[in-house]
Amino acid sequence: MTTASPVPTAPAPPVGVVGLGQLGGSLAAALVAAGRAVAGWDVDPAAREAAAARGVRITRELAGVVVLAVPLPAMAGALDGLDVAPDATVTDVGSVKAPVLAELAPVLGGRYVGGHPMCGTERSGHAATDPGLFTGARWAVCLEPDTALPRWLRVAEVALDAGAEVVPATAAEHDEAVAAVSHVPHLLAAALAAAAGEAGPLALALAAGSFRDGTRVIGSDPAFVTAMVQGNAGPTAAALERVQAQLARPWPELVAAGHAVRAAAPAGRRTVHVPLDRAALLALGRAGGAVTRRLAAFLEGWVPEG
Amino acid sequence: MTTASPVPTAPAPPVGVVGLGQLGGSLAAALVAAGRAVAGWDVDPAAREAAAARGVRITRELAGVVVLAVPLPAMAGALDGLDVAPDATVTDVGSVKAPVLAELAPVLGGRYVGGHPMCGTERSGHAATDPGLFTGARWAVCLEPDTALPRWLRVAEVALDAGAEVVPATAAEHDEAVAAVSHVPHLLAAALAAAAGEAGPLALALAAGSFRDGTRVIGSDPAFVTAMVQGNAGPTAAALERVQAQLARPWPELVAAGHAVRAAAPAGRRTVHVPLDRAALLALGRAGGAVTRRLAAFLEGWVPEG
Repeated sequence: MTTASPVPTAPAPPVGVVGLGQLGGSLAAALVAAGRAVAGWDVDPAAREAAAARGVRITRELAGVVVLAVPLPAMAGALDGLDVAPDATVTDVGSVKAPVLAELAPVLGGRYVGGHPMCGTERSGHAATDPGLFTGARWAVCLEPDTALPRWLRVAEVALDAGAEVVPATAAEHDEAVAAVSHVPHLLAAALAAAAGEAGPLALALAAGSFRDGTRVIGSDPAFVTAMVQGNAGPTAAALERVQAQLARPWPELVAAGHAVRAAAPAGRRTVHVPLDRAALLALGRAGGAVTRRLAAFLEGWVPEG
Repeated sequence: MTTASPVPTAPAPPVGVVGLGQLGGSLAAALVAAGRAVAGWDVDPAAREAAAARGVRITRELAGVVVLAVPLPAMAGALDGLDVAPDATVTDVGSVKAPVLAELAPVLGGRYVGGHPMCGTERSGHAATDPGLFTGARWAVCLEPDTALPRWLRVAEVALDAGAEVVPATAAEHDEAVAAVSHVPHLLAAALAAAAGEAGPLALALAAGSFRDGTRVIGSDPAFVTAMVQGNAGPTAAALERVQAQLARPWPELVAAGHAVRAAAPAGRRTVHVPLDRAALLALGRAGGAVTRRLAAFLEGWVPEG
């Protein structure tokens, strides 16, 4: 397999982006820049105009890979009023995956493949669009037992074309992982800020870097954060319990353990070739690896060394 | 009092800095740039050489205001082997104040005035020296019932000359405030990192901005962090309990409360004139205000508006 040389992927289908705010607008712009044909729609005329100015064809008729880039509470109704090709693959960029799968699978069946790019900022809306938002980011693309691998690959190609690295995972694995590294950090930031508020003006006047960094993410829209943590309530509660257990350790142990994780040198990367095979892809994700491109006969990616 | 015009302070005494690492080296460099006469000492010849190159006179004979910029465990022995003028005012830059006061007051009596600049990074050592480190930072300068106000003023002038704003507080008030905004954030960062480490490679591979920001401070030297939280164990444990109580709230409430503190627009500042009076200065600090300069007959500072 090492003799295989890179070849273009099969003709890339068009991409339709529903919701042209920070994530959707950035994705549409990144895909236009990568040469993909991109159509899109947003309920907000200003977001449509901004996307049109970046080369997105504004239409309610979507085909190929349709990306739902709307807030979690709007996900179930995101396709209402749109004309989506019957064979289109539908994905999303929501921050939880099992609940969206549960909502969309009964309607879309195997045409739905969940996704979640690990990026975004505390800003939102089409004015926060940045075509470079996904460059080098990890993008989870979900593989369930009944996911059709060709559809999974179409979604992975969208993420790769946007500049991201694709992490294969089941929806359940994804939700447990992001509870630990994203949803619990939002709750800790909220608790830290709220408790400091109770401590009073002198404390807030003395707040500096550690408080600023430790509370940054709770600057995000509270409705978005609440939908995210409540949408992933089970895994988030379990991850929060693991944090509480850590906080109960003697402080020198706790500090040493936390420092060891944070200060670990980034693992080297070993390039791997992965067949388009569910078990092999999920094993890659569980090892902390990611897919970086599609070659002729396989996918190329990496896993941490050592 | 509003007719008083700015005048130079009384002839500024020399400053002696003990420990020329990140904080001490940066302070010495900032004071040299501000035109103060700065002497200094460090047990490490490389730190002495680096400071000498920035205009610091290297000597064991120190007078005027002597600043102890050594790690907390080294504070009690910091003056060993040095020749300090008998009337020198001694201050420090340690991150807890009541324990240092308890150690140094029996030896130094009213000559000790505690201090704590709210800056520094996860880096350390003389190679991390930055004369701009204190610009705009808050610097707590402690006022105990027996603090001689002229000595407090000498220390405050050092902080002001380094570019900082001076927050008056008692050692106990300071320790409670920094427990909430600095020491607890270090423990939360440690617990978040350690729990994510338990969650495994997939979780760490999906970690992005919220994890990076939420764990940054635990990249600091674990010995430094441990000494800090253990040196302020009572207030830190109490502040951690307040965070735990916040974490027990329903998540929508928690998120809203945290967001409100984080997103509060910075209060406007009202300029105030403060007499050199213990009660007035402590009231300024408790209101979230700070001293910004010394004028002829009073100090000038600000308090939050509204």
